Amino acid sequence: MVYDIESKRVGKMLKLCRRYLNWIQNSVFEGELSEVKLKELILEARKIMKIEKDSLIIFSSRQEKWLDKQVIGKEKNELDNLL
Amino acid sequence: MVYDIESKRVGKMLKLCRRYLNWIQNSVFEGELSEVKLKELILEARKIMKIEKDSLIIFSSRQEKWLDKQVIGKEKNELDNLL
Repeated sequence: MVYDIESKRVGKMLKLCRRYLNWIQNSVFEGELSEVKLKELILEARKIMKIEKDSLIIFSSRQEKWLDKQVIGKEKNELDNLL
Repeated sequence: MVYDIESKRVGKMLKLCRRYLNWIQNSVFEGELSEVKLKELILEARKIMKIEKDSLIIFSSRQEKWLDKQVIGKEKNELDNLL
């Protein structure tokens, strides 16, 4: 999941997303969610967002093995789970 | 593809990525690339990046149908192909 949210709303959004997903970069999150949890997250996100200004994009795959991930450079939020 | 690049290098990186992919949000790009082209992009990106500070994450799927995309809110770069 990636978002582009105006700075005054970004703190709230970050907090929300971290309740559901792992923060891996700037405004990028990843994780495994059930359809129900994903709907819940979208619903909560819509309450924070200004629909005409902000955007949220969700890329999803039914099976983890269908999606490869490659990191070049610094792995930013290795400790995210500990925070 | 998503990147997190220090501001002084971000212009160059944006330019590079747009040669290969479509810019869909802030630091987020998507598109279809052959393995060769992807390797080329990574090679060029490494030249721009400071490996200890910047990061680049590539999520890829062999088949387009394996990856769903859902946009909430503003579709930011609809005109990207025209720019």
